[in-house]
Amino acid sequence: MIKVGIVGGTGYTGAELLRLLAQHPQVELRAITSRGDAGTAVADMFPSLRGRVVLNFVAPQVAALETCDVVFFATPNGIAMGQAKALLDAGVRVIDLAADFRIKDIPEWEKWYGMKHSAPELIADAVYGLPEANREKIRAARLVANPGCYPTAVQLGFLPLVESGVVDTNYLIADAKSGVSGAGRKAELHTLFSEASDSFKAYGVPGHRHLPEIRQGLSIAAGKTVGLTFVPHLTPMIRGIHATLYARVTRETDFQALYEAHYKAEPFVDVLPFASHPDTRSVRAANMCRIALHRPQGGDTLVVLSVIDNLVKGAAGQAVQNMNLMFGFNECAGLTQIPVLP
Amino acid sequence: MIKVGIVGGTGYTGAELLRLLAQHPQVELRAITSRGDAGTAVADMFPSLRGRVVLNFVAPQVAALETCDVVFFATPNGIAMGQAKALLDAGVRVIDLAADFRIKDIPEWEKWYGMKHSAPELIADAVYGLPEANREKIRAARLVANPGCYPTAVQLGFLPLVESGVVDTNYLIADAKSGVSGAGRKAELHTLFSEASDSFKAYGVPGHRHLPEIRQGLSIAAGKTVGLTFVPHLTPMIRGIHATLYARVTRETDFQALYEAHYKAEPFVDVLPFASHPDTRSVRAANMCRIALHRPQGGDTLVVLSVIDNLVKGAAGQAVQNMNLMFGFNECAGLTQIPVLP
Amino acid sequence: MIKVGIVGGTGYTGAELLRLLAQHPQVELRAITSRGDAGTAVADMFPSLRGRVVLNFVAPQVAALETCDVVFFATPNGIAMGQAKALLDAGVRVIDLAADFRIKDIPEWEKWYGMKHSAPELIADAVYGLPEANREKIRAARLVANPGCYPTAVQLGFLPLVESGVVDTNYLIADAKSGVSGAGRKAELHTLFSEASDSFKAYGVPGHRHLPEIRQGLSIAAGKTVGLTFVPHLTPMIRGIHATLYARVTRETDFQALYEAHYKAEPFVDVLPFASHPDTRSVRAANMCRIALHRPQGGDTLVVLSVIDNLVKGAAGQAVQNMNLMFGFNECAGLTQIPVLP
Amino acid sequence: MIKVGIVGGTGYTGAELLRLLAQHPQVELRAITSRGDAGTAVADMFPSLRGRVVLNFVAPQVAALETCDVVFFATPNGIAMGQAKALLDAGVRVIDLAADFRIKDIPEWEKWYGMKHSAPELIADAVYGLPEANREKIRAARLVANPGCYPTAVQLGFLPLVESGVVDTNYLIADAKSGVSGAGRKAELHTLFSEASDSFKAYGVPGHRHLPEIRQGLSIAAGKTVGLTFVPHLTPMIRGIHATLYARVTRETDFQALYEAHYKAEPFVDVLPFASHPDTRSVRAANMCRIALHRPQGGDTLVVLSVIDNLVKGAAGQAVQNMNLMFGFNECAGLTQIPVLP
Repeated sequence: MIKVGIVGGTGYTGAELLRLLAQHPQVELRAITSRGDAGTAVADMFPSLRGRVVLNFVAPQVAALETCDVVFFATPNGIAMGQAKALLDAGVRVIDLAADFRIKDIPEWEKWYGMKHSAPELIADAVYGLPEANREKIRAARLVANPGCYPTAVQLGFLPLVESGVVDTNYLIADAKSGVSGAGRKAELHTLFSEASDSFKAYGVPGHRHLPEIRQGLSIAAGKTVGLTFVPHLTPMIRGIHATLYARVTRETDFQALYEAHYKAEPFVDVLPFASHPDTRSVRAANMCRIALHRPQGGDTLVVLSVIDNLVKGAAGQAVQNMNLMFGFNECAGLTQIPVLP
Repeated sequence: MIKVGIVGGTGYTGAELLRLLAQHPQVELRAITSRGDAGTAVADMFPSLRGRVVLNFVAPQVAALETCDVVFFATPNGIAMGQAKALLDAGVRVIDLAADFRIKDIPEWEKWYGMKHSAPELIADAVYGLPEANREKIRAARLVANPGCYPTAVQLGFLPLVESGVVDTNYLIADAKSGVSGAGRKAELHTLFSEASDSFKAYGVPGHRHLPEIRQGLSIAAGKTVGLTFVPHLTPMIRGIHATLYARVTRETDFQALYEAHYKAEPFVDVLPFASHPDTRSVRAANMCRIALHRPQGGDTLVVLSVIDNLVKGAAGQAVQNMNLMFGFNECAGLTQIPVLP
Repeated sequence: MIKVGIVGGTGYTGAELLRLLAQHPQVELRAITSRGDAGTAVADMFPSLRGRVVLNFVAPQVAALETCDVVFFATPNGIAMGQAKALLDAGVRVIDLAADFRIKDIPEWEKWYGMKHSAPELIADAVYGLPEANREKIRAARLVANPGCYPTAVQLGFLPLVESGVVDTNYLIADAKSGVSGAGRKAELHTLFSEASDSFKAYGVPGHRHLPEIRQGLSIAAGKTVGLTFVPHLTPMIRGIHATLYARVTRETDFQALYEAHYKAEPFVDVLPFASHPDTRSVRAANMCRIALHRPQGGDTLVVLSVIDNLVKGAAGQAVQNMNLMFGFNECAGLTQIPVLP
Repeated sequence: MIKVGIVGGTGYTGAELLRLLAQHPQVELRAITSRGDAGTAVADMFPSLRGRVVLNFVAPQVAALETCDVVFFATPNGIAMGQAKALLDAGVRVIDLAADFRIKDIPEWEKWYGMKHSAPELIADAVYGLPEANREKIRAARLVANPGCYPTAVQLGFLPLVESGVVDTNYLIADAKSGVSGAGRKAELHTLFSEASDSFKAYGVPGHRHLPEIRQGLSIAAGKTVGLTFVPHLTPMIRGIHATLYARVTRETDFQALYEAHYKAEPFVDVLPFASHPDTRSVRAANMCRIALHRPQGGDTLVVLSVIDNLVKGAAGQAVQNMNLMFGFNECAGLTQIPVLP
């Protein structure tokens, strides 16, 4: 049993962490902090947790997070970078579900996130927490930057192609659709039910913060800078990301075999039969990415479909997967939920 | 480990049984039958089960159900009554998720279900599978009639009042709202997305088949025939039942204390603080009923709010709970999933 | 052509007023005010109005509302009461879509709305704008209090019964379900898509502000104070109210004939054949109330189903209907839209 | 006033035609046929039309369609081709909302639609009813092939680029998302609420019937065969298509000016300011296409966003627009509805 703390447990990734960790056989939840809601019972804010999580939110300064084995940050961008060092110095491992440690190029990070990075000295040691790309580094990591939801779906979908150099990496296209929970649990107009339901739209087409993160990951895999057009869309569903990826073939191979081999040993990536159409509900509430390959009309454009639950494999589930790796647990511990369908 | 068979696993209650049983520590799934889909892999029909359920659907005659310890019927009404006897005679216990054995008054059943009952001799021994009302009988039962979804929510909401004789049982009102999955996985016009979403309607107001079932249960509890108006509604959500119950006080008591005492030891009924408003998502995908009491404006009309997931506590979860009781397992075995929120 | 102004056009009732008035043959839209959004083009906030409404929002003080023939207040409660007198004194007629002038009993209003009424002298002359109850008074009114959405659906459903004294008015029950747009266009947590979709809940059961308004209307019709239990619910749809009403028969009559006679001449109330089940989409985006009567199992409880679009017959459409009456237009002018289905 | 008939009015495009035509100032609805529902009142099937359409469905043979001025086919593919000739011979103009006359290459049509074309002699004279491309031909047409929903959104989005030869037409990508009503009003499993809501998926990636139609239209505009990858997706909303289009720039120009000039005179195409994000609800229930241009990160990939209501500009509205052109009416007659938002 390890002692676990959560900073900022009042958003959707925080609530999802609580759901997963409360069922994890080797975890003891010690503290959940919230400045605004200190004193509130977790189960009063999230009635789904009644009888399962008995903690109250506490103010950060009394949470004794330094006595935990690991602390998750489920906070807005810019919080973890201010608090991680003290925890690391106290021997606590840190998993940040926000973006603070995802981008290696600090000026690039500062441009996209619109703030000064306050802990640039930690960036070099932070490990990007995509187990399918970085498993060994994660095992040894003290600070893990948990990937964004879109970056998880898009990278897992593109990695086999990009690594093997069989497509034109100058013109990758990722047309991605996210459920509304991806926008977080914040009182905002555009994510109201009456605004977001029964409608569909693109957003952030000129530039979304997940673009540099995806580009970084794919460029590492390709061994050179890739060109990527990334268009996110808001979809009237609660959870789920569906990434539709387009790449032009530059070298023929058995693409299906390539994907199956690449993900053969992965417990949380499922390569479907060729020309399948995964729906997002097939991974709802579970830590799973399902991927299908298409080659429409036999032309030279490959289409890859990649679906995840943005709150699980795209956030809290992947964070728990990273924790399992960091502590030498079975990688699947606490992550065996079967997707909820219908 | 017990050997389990499912007859008719292609509907939503069948799929939900599969989800729950595949995670149950003492269950070995042996056979799932389907006339129409024999030969199809379960995971091809329900991709959420890929990697978790490796069975194919098989034709009933080759399923060897008589070698199972228990067989669940997740079939349309009228099927289980034709097959239960042979299984019972072979020493197999039977849990019917349809309505065949729910009503003790056979002519009443035949009137509401529009068919002749083919196994009236089994009715007397069939146990109505509402553990909160019938736990000891269920433990000893060989044939369990698993309650309907509305009857579960309405009875759990009304039972403490009706048993204690503190309200006018001649004029009970149950205004119930169900998610669309309650209509089953059938190709029908009125449950199409384009028909049922972004809209709300009542149905079956002149008389719904769950009316006699609820009336029977409440009348047993009251010790006399109750009068009930039951109005079901179709709600644009996948899962969930919200029953809003109205009863007129005839004898004052501490109603909140009454409910808390009544359900004190129940693992799957949660009495909320007085005047709470449970939402259906607080029980989504979990075997739980949450109940809240109100007394608007201090008048003499009590309002009880009762929510369940129709596919879990209202169907498959309750069936597994019954199985646990029948086989002496921990009543919560395989039923500890935390509700999925958001 | 009359000159029309709107105060507070940035909410849903404001947007709906714009949609209806922009298509009204006798209306010239002169000014739409918004403190926070002055200078913004209406069509930038509501792209659905591009090319159809060319006005910008303006600050109230420059709107020259006193030069209008009629001004609609689509503001939060408490605004119209501060501004109506000056407009009325300038000869402008006023239609308030908020609650400021709906309740005749001022202490009662102040209790429910939690503020001091600043224009009690206007209450006596304000006409409650439910045309089916008050048509002649509305024609002559200078100040109309447009009814709330729930009160419209519930009163239209109950009025024939209550007026004719054929049911027990001490124990009326109104179980009402509203789409989320009824909560307005405000950045709030509980109406986020991820909170309100795929779920259902009651709210305000201890006491909702529409209770005294409904009770007032029904008591006037009954000629005595009625007893009412009113339970509103939040439904995962954008528009629509479905009121399910329960009343106990005290005197037999032909109830269906009663309703048909009562609403025979009404252009915006449609009495369906006995035992019908109207869905809310059958009135979506149209100024219409559809009503159906049931008498389940032939017992002595009547069930009335009443559906409206909360933004049209429950708000902006009814306001335009009132305007038509006040200015001697055809009552249906600008209100002939056919409901949008699917 | 012209006399109008509809063949097959029981689907969503039929219902939408009825909604639009019932409000059209120059149309007299004469007959609506349905084999299966002859004798049923239209308003019983579509309660939204109560009081607005008083016709009953009639059997085709008694509909006297040959006495109409124009007949719309809102039928499955393959019906209009069997009946159009007789009507045309009788001097009736025909607008087919299905696919029978959309593809000029008959073997190509037969391959994609899986049946023999029974009226190939009519193909040459049939006019493809996209007014923005073919207005003058439509005015003179006797037989109009109304475009598919996806083809309308995709062609309107791509046409200015393709016609002006400024992008690489060998590698066009159309990633399109449709509401569920696009699948029609048919009792099918995959479009059930419980299957299609709160989820998202691609379908038909190997080849969708709208691919050859789009390719034909764009190839005509380009003056050469274009290469197109078309991926449709099913979106949990009732109405709406959002096409996200990708093209690589081959010649620099002012793309925004190009679009604005191209659609300057079009009443039903709205070019938004550069880098806008139209949502589908901004055209809900209205005959309108809104288009926005993006050039992410200043690279050489253009992104065009194009939204329509699949049942209006993508079907019934466009059909009425074509009728207006064919009969010399104002092109906007009966099509001035303002989109319904929220």
